Amino acid sequence: MRARAGVIAVGLSSLLMAASSTDVQTLPGYSAASSRIERDWEAKFRDIPTPQNFRDYMQRLSARPHHVGSPYDKDNAEWILSKFKEWGLDAKIETFEVLFPTPKERVVELVEPKKFVAKLQEPAVQVDPTSNQQAEQLPIYNAYSADGDVTAPLVYVNYGVPEDYEQLERMGVSVKGAIVIARYFHSWRGIKPKVAAEHGAVGCIIYSDPHEDGYFEGDVFPGGAWRPSEGAQRGSVMDLPIYPGDPLTPGVGATKDAKRLQLKGVTTLTKIPVLPISYGDAQPLLGALKGNIVPESWRGSLPVPYHVGPGPAKVHLKVQSNWDIKTLYDVIVKIPGSVNPDQWIVRGNHHDAWVNGAEDPVSGTVTLMEEARALATLLKQGWKPGRTIIYGVWDGEEPGLLGSTEWAEAHADELREHAAVYVNTDANGRGYLQAGGSHSLENFMNGVAKDIQDPEKQISVWKRAQLKAIANATKPDDRQDTRQRADLRIDALGSGSDWTVFLDHLGLASLNLSYGDEDGGGIYHSIYDDFYWYTHFSDTDFSYGRALAQTVGTAVMRLANAELLPFEFTDQADTVHRYVDELQKLLKDKQEEITERNKELEEGVFSATADPKKTSAPPVREEIPSHLNFAPLQNAADALTRAAEHYKKALEGASKSGDLSLDSATLDSLNAKLLQTERKLMSADGLPGRPWYRHLIYAPGQYTGYGAKTIPGVREGIEQKKWKQADEQIVHAATALQDEAALIDSAAQQLESGK
Amino acid sequence: MRARAGVIAVGLSSLLMAASSTDVQTLPGYSAASSRIERDWEAKFRDIPTPQNFRDYMQRLSARPHHVGSPYDKDNAEWILSKFKEWGLDAKIETFEVLFPTPKERVVELVEPKKFVAKLQEPAVQVDPTSNQQAEQLPIYNAYSADGDVTAPLVYVNYGVPEDYEQLERMGVSVKGAIVIARYFHSWRGIKPKVAAEHGAVGCIIYSDPHEDGYFEGDVFPGGAWRPSEGAQRGSVMDLPIYPGDPLTPGVGATKDAKRLQLKGVTTLTKIPVLPISYGDAQPLLGALKGNIVPESWRGSLPVPYHVGPGPAKVHLKVQSNWDIKTLYDVIVKIPGSVNPDQWIVRGNHHDAWVNGAEDPVSGTVTLMEEARALATLLKQGWKPGRTIIYGVWDGEEPGLLGSTEWAEAHADELREHAAVYVNTDANGRGYLQAGGSHSLENFMNGVAKDIQDPEKQISVWKRAQLKAIANATKPDDRQDTRQRADLRIDALGSGSDWTVFLDHLGLASLNLSYGDEDGGGIYHSIYDDFYWYTHFSDTDFSYGRALAQTVGTAVMRLANAELLPFEFTDQADTVHRYVDELQKLLKDKQEEITERNKELEEGVFSATADPKKTSAPPVREEIPSHLNFAPLQNAADALTRAAEHYKKALEGASKSGDLSLDSATLDSLNAKLLQTERKLMSADGLPGRPWYRHLIYAPGQYTGYGAKTIPGVREGIEQKKWKQADEQIVHAATALQDEAALIDSAAQQLESGK
Repeated sequence: MRARAGVIAVGLSSLLMAASSTDVQTLPGYSAASSRIERDWEAKFRDIPTPQNFRDYMQRLSARPHHVGSPYDKDNAEWILSKFKEWGLDAKIETFEVLFPTPKERVVELVEPKKFVAKLQEPAVQVDPTSNQQAEQLPIYNAYSADGDVTAPLVYVNYGVPEDYEQLERMGVSVKGAIVIARYFHSWRGIKPKVAAEHGAVGCIIYSDPHEDGYFEGDVFPGGAWRPSEGAQRGSVMDLPIYPGDPLTPGVGATKDAKRLQLKGVTTLTKIPVLPISYGDAQPLLGALKGNIVPESWRGSLPVPYHVGPGPAKVHLKVQSNWDIKTLYDVIVKIPGSVNPDQWIVRGNHHDAWVNGAEDPVSGTVTLMEEARALATLLKQGWKPGRTIIYGVWDGEEPGLLGSTEWAEAHADELREHAAVYVNTDANGRGYLQAGGSHSLENFMNGVAKDIQDPEKQISVWKRAQLKAIANATKPDDRQDTRQRADLRIDALGSGSDWTVFLDHLGLASLNLSYGDEDGGGIYHSIYDDFYWYTHFSDTDFSYGRALAQTVGTAVMRLANAELLPFEFTDQADTVHRYVDELQKLLKDKQEEITERNKELEEGVFSATADPKKTSAPPVREEIPSHLNFAPLQNAADALTRAAEHYKKALEGASKSGDLSLDSATLDSLNAKLLQTERKLMSADGLPGRPWYRHLIYAPGQYTGYGAKTIPGVREGIEQKKWKQADEQIVHAATALQDEAALIDSAAQQLESGK
Repeated sequence: MRARAGVIAVGLSSLLMAASSTDVQTLPGYSAASSRIERDWEAKFRDIPTPQNFRDYMQRLSARPHHVGSPYDKDNAEWILSKFKEWGLDAKIETFEVLFPTPKERVVELVEPKKFVAKLQEPAVQVDPTSNQQAEQLPIYNAYSADGDVTAPLVYVNYGVPEDYEQLERMGVSVKGAIVIARYFHSWRGIKPKVAAEHGAVGCIIYSDPHEDGYFEGDVFPGGAWRPSEGAQRGSVMDLPIYPGDPLTPGVGATKDAKRLQLKGVTTLTKIPVLPISYGDAQPLLGALKGNIVPESWRGSLPVPYHVGPGPAKVHLKVQSNWDIKTLYDVIVKIPGSVNPDQWIVRGNHHDAWVNGAEDPVSGTVTLMEEARALATLLKQGWKPGRTIIYGVWDGEEPGLLGSTEWAEAHADELREHAAVYVNTDANGRGYLQAGGSHSLENFMNGVAKDIQDPEKQISVWKRAQLKAIANATKPDDRQDTRQRADLRIDALGSGSDWTVFLDHLGLASLNLSYGDEDGGGIYHSIYDDFYWYTHFSDTDFSYGRALAQTVGTAVMRLANAELLPFEFTDQADTVHRYVDELQKLLKDKQEEITERNKELEEGVFSATADPKKTSAPPVREEIPSHLNFAPLQNAADALTRAAEHYKKALEGASKSGDLSLDSATLDSLNAKLLQTERKLMSADGLPGRPWYRHLIYAPGQYTGYGAKTIPGVREGIEQKKWKQADEQIVHAATALQDEAALIDSAAQQLESGK
């Protein structure tokens, strides 16, 4: 369910190693000799992916709707399995049984001041051959919405995030007892009904405004790539920041005989009914509102004045679902390691879609398949991975990361013991390499990106990403950093795709990779995300499909064959320092903001500037937050920097001769330590209020959903003004970072001693 | 032709004296005794204006269209004259003969890829009784457009300002031989055809986008205040930054027998035909464009993707005018001074409109009338102004400041000798005091604003403006400045109303005053700017009309009666220092911008980030500008600060006893010096390329039109990369400021010596 990059992703994800030299360097974690061999195999690998295969796989996989529980979902899994087997790989299907509601009844209608019934239906388009498969299409809906039948005045709440409700208060508007209409974007969709319910709303409508997702962005489908008037965005509204996966089996695999919660005990369903609608359906609703004109940043691109309400528009909203259990089909491939079979590199992409899903996820699924075919080809030529490689083609990602979560929960103990890295992809497009992940892999990914050629330009994807980051930088300091830092920075991961359980619940160092930013479009989670759209408007020649297969395949091979796991910690320490600085600035900004606002309240700024012809209310006076003791985090970040530099120096010492010159027992011991480094950042208790999420450095935000919050316990403590939590979480995060530093130090000492 | 405040005006204009104390201070320039008398008369004055009068005058003046040359324009002038006479004032009409083209033929039509003929007609609205006076309405057109008949591909150029053409180059788009379509706003309209012609366009269409001037802003007329789909903005496109006034008589009054240029010798007409259209007419044109989607900041709020073109849309544009001479009727009132009859305070507002013009200008005209009635009432009660007061009710402002310019040019010698201050108003609305003008009057205006009560809040308009400026400040430093500086800052004046000739050509210290910012609307220069609109959506109870009459009347009386002209120079010096700092920053930013761009060109940023599926071109390499010698300006600003402080101290010394204790000959001599201070800032040669504009500190921008450029010779030299000009103009401006400082010093010495 990856949201389109360059649209909701914050800025450009970018990539990565110091001088872009053309001389061949010894790969980190490799001896000179094994590095040469590895590079030869990688070069062979990168020659194999063939655009025509991507096209053929995509046409097959997206030929019919293939959501969870549909016949074609199972059919696709079996076909993928058959291809893996045909290529000689050891593959199987693992099944899970999960709660997956589908709609029984859906109503959105304006009942006052005049009648309008929303169509809630995307029309077939003549030129698009799969758009007419209505019998198999899931209707427009939001999965895991509460059932409900409400009639109430309408209030427009912009993106429906907490700041918007602060603004509503300033306008003197309450949503208590109202149905809210929010536009998509600026948070994951599941946040919108959650925040609405917290403020007393009884229903929630989410629509795609043409500003972010229609004619404001470009020509609409089928004339262009963007969302047409009747197109709508399906999607899950489960409370993913509490826990993802099957709502009935948190923390355990949803096997047939797993212990299940009662539906009424589930905390991840919405509290109020919610439905998504198109902008064609939204316009009469928004056009019927009165009350204040909303602030400029709240206005979209429909040709109506945007009023806030409440009313006179009154809306009837009804949602009723079939609360059924469906079967998931995860396809799993295992390529056993020849040197370290008990160390695993896991690589995944989902195969289920909301409808035909050519972009989401098939553009990523076909990449994984072509990688697997290429590895199978290499195996036949005599190549053997050092570590075990596991490929997972997940089902049920769209409703809530079901397939990956249930599989990983079912295999949690093995994964915690054996898995070194998880590499994810999801939808792919045209443009720049976008990389997110654990910062212990930042330097590694920079190295990979320097070896991949951009299909549109005669430069590496690393160089292109660097030049794009220079072009996009809005501050001279950021430009300087991009020019001078050896590695380009990778983004922290929030949620929104299948890395979540691996990184946030199990503590596997993870990566998420794609290309994009030149491939705008507005068919996300609609019937128009299909083969016709993708081959007309996205990576039409699959050259970036090929580039992604080359990128991920190179990364997987390089991880699997490295004598020493190629984690690097100075980038990680540098990143942690930035986070700690950000937290201090966040508190300082909050203190200054509240101080200023209190002062303005005393001065009478708000009453003097309130227009008597509009409704408004001054903000409430707040206590100025006290200072927090950041010292434990600062000390821990310093300790991590020292340990990282120690390890770097020790590794350089051990590699001086061009050889690692370590016996295999020492290598095994070192690798075992390195494999556990990310695990040190986990908390046994999890994050405040959401124990499933255990990573103390990365988490999806409780009020962003997909967007990452780094050092989340502290950051959200400050953001939500929970000062005691922030104080405690500083200590937790600092302790974890100190443990991590100690482990790295111990690895460095072992490297120095050579045994 | 004032453009609506809060819409194109940059930020809030704000006002004015240190502590908002309620104790009555001695007025600057007054002895304690005369200050008390003055305050009594002012209080009497402020009780006189009556909302019902504003309403009655407005209903009469806006009852029919009254543009230059129309029967009702003359009728209004005669009615105003009769009212002045009725009130016992010495009034007369002065006439001038000016070139005023009106349309004979107007065509805008899309000829490819399909046919669409623009209506170019605003429909009558049932509830609005004057909207149906079609026989008398001037059609939608831009006065002083060149005649022409062209058919060419269309290109969308955003606001049509120079930066937009740089962006067009980056998109690989040329307007050579094309018709451009630009949206209103972000520059005065006359700039758009001028810049288009400079880039080789053969025609220009200007439309009102609903983003700035329609449903994006609020409900449209008659349901709301904003511009409806078929509403359009008339207006002049004469090249006002070259010279305003009658195109045939630059620099001299357009009396019957004045020497006139041949039409073909006039430099202020456009080079290409231009017409304004409504957004209803614009949508089919914009919707027919292809080519790149324009950058986000270029997109308006029409429900179409905004493409740049050129074509496939091809447009036929035809403009043919009657190039007639029309008579202007300026109404002039003279109230002779009893102490200093040879020192004049001039106060003006225009009476002509594009159509019915209830807001523009009648809301200002009626304010002037009610002020005049109040002064006439005081005169009958025995009040006598110290200085002579002249009221001018100008005709022909809309086409190009004709009435004020011709009158001031005809009376130039007298005005240079006698006039101390010019006070202007134009359209008025609801909200905050907006003040612009000469900074030697900044402290004075702060004092006036503290004595005016805001009709909506129980505070002075000064306090409300200060609190609004605090609320609006985006930088803590600006907020600090607003809180701590004794005087609120007033804006520099560009052009757009009748102060232009007085300030920029003759060197009279000037003020321009209005209320606004709570009175949004979109009827500017349309048939809907009428009594119905104004009394439903603007200052509906005329309480701000009354406040403006109180403000301006107080200012005029206080200026007329001060024993010593109440100029204050420390505010002026402080402001000049800011301008000098801005100029240095402007150059530094340009140097850094070009350095960075050249570096990015070398790095290959532009080629790496060019999307191969879009047209684009890298920017051209530019020389990095050399440093300029700002020392003469810095020294002059310092000299001005010293002189200003000297004068301030000397004045405090002279007023210590509560009395000015100067004999009348000394006062006369001092007043004569003070009257000349603003004149010292004038250049005999005028500004580069536009000798009519002589003020070295303030001018309308050559590429902004209304927007002010301060220290314009230097600033525009830097902006336009004319380094030699910038260098020379630094010296000119510095010399003028040194002369000004010397004059102020001499006044200070005279104050100290007491004779």
